[in-house]
Amino acid sequence: MQIAILLYDRFTALDAVGPYELLGRLPGAETVFVAEKTGPVRNDQGSLTLIAERSLAEVTAPDIVVVPGGTSTRQVLKNKTVLEWLRTVDATSTWTTSVCVGSLVLAGAGLLKGRRATSHWLALDDLAGFGVEPTGERVVFDGKYVTSAGVSSGLDMALHLLGRIAGDPTAQSVQLLTEYDPQPPYDAGSPDKAPADLVADWRGEAEWVLHGAS
Amino acid sequence: MQIAILLYDRFTALDAVGPYELLGRLPGAETVFVAEKTGPVRNDQGSLTLIAERSLAEVTAPDIVVVPGGTSTRQVLKNKTVLEWLRTVDATSTWTTSVCVGSLVLAGAGLLKGRRATSHWLALDDLAGFGVEPTGERVVFDGKYVTSAGVSSGLDMALHLLGRIAGDPTAQSVQLLTEYDPQPPYDAGSPDKAPADLVADWRGEAEWVLHGAS
Repeated sequence: MQIAILLYDRFTALDAVGPYELLGRLPGAETVFVAEKTGPVRNDQGSLTLIAERSLAEVTAPDIVVVPGGTSTRQVLKNKTVLEWLRTVDATSTWTTSVCVGSLVLAGAGLLKGRRATSHWLALDDLAGFGVEPTGERVVFDGKYVTSAGVSSGLDMALHLLGRIAGDPTAQSVQLLTEYDPQPPYDAGSPDKAPADLVADWRGEAEWVLHGAS
Repeated sequence: MQIAILLYDRFTALDAVGPYELLGRLPGAETVFVAEKTGPVRNDQGSLTLIAERSLAEVTAPDIVVVPGGTSTRQVLKNKTVLEWLRTVDATSTWTTSVCVGSLVLAGAGLLKGRRATSHWLALDDLAGFGVEPTGERVVFDGKYVTSAGVSSGLDMALHLLGRIAGDPTAQSVQLLTEYDPQPPYDAGSPDKAPADLVADWRGEAEWVLHGAS
């Protein structure tokens, strides 16, 4: 089973590495980081560089596709090579997935039309603009399309997928080995739970949060 | 404020990238991935390569040091350059931290003697061998030393640190923006909670889990 994780300039590191760390432990899986061309790819914070070891042209039939979010989705949505690759690999994938605003990229490729999907909480309206039914749920399955909420949600998505693909004991083993027993010191991880003033502040900064400084 | 994240061959990706993603959002922080020499560093699964943009010699006084775990701690514990660098930067750091078996490296450098600390649940006995008082807690503060449990625990550690450094609203903002509202589909993330047969199986494989195939 091949798992392809798409990289592009200004991707969000945890969006990619969270699912990678868990899904990569699937027995027999081959995980590949793939980008338009091979080589270094810089993240949105500008201080992390991952290597894309395969070009899009080299990865033609992954079983699982993972599209992370980032602060360059507007640019990615204009990149015909990436969108065409997504449509091509989606034709034969078993699972087509996204983390955070990666769902906007899937939607822009026309893959989520009429489906239920999720995204970063600040991007749910944008998702609706693509003819997708947005939901604030953390992980959404609609057929073979699996979308997850902001940044850290890829961990939960990966566990769901591991369970579906390999069964509960394998997924639970991965959870145990990665000691995913979350104990955040605050309960502020969603707009329903965070202090209202913070939620309001960030709604006012949505453009910057989703699309960065440039 | 400079945050230095140590990389070494066969590090665990999420150990490094989890804290990176959250701590890197600290206003004014500069985050650097550092290794014995600059360039690509391969992870324990063998399919992810991060770039170390600074050598140890170039990073002499970080405010926060983060040591991830990996499956090569035995080799790292023999690496005098790395251990000496840790002792040097620890002399002036504000926080010296680890994720997973990164605490064995800190302990091997002599930095945790007589202190309370944590590690991956399979490595707590190893930690005791260094004269450290092991605890199964997820995040342990003992003075400026902050250790966290297996792989995914670095997310919780980072939120704790953000709160201490920048105050609760900043930490809660980071939690909200990264949508860290964990909802794993299983409750198997610690040996106290996972099915007993899985825990027993992995205890029998501890050597492989902690030190890999080689």
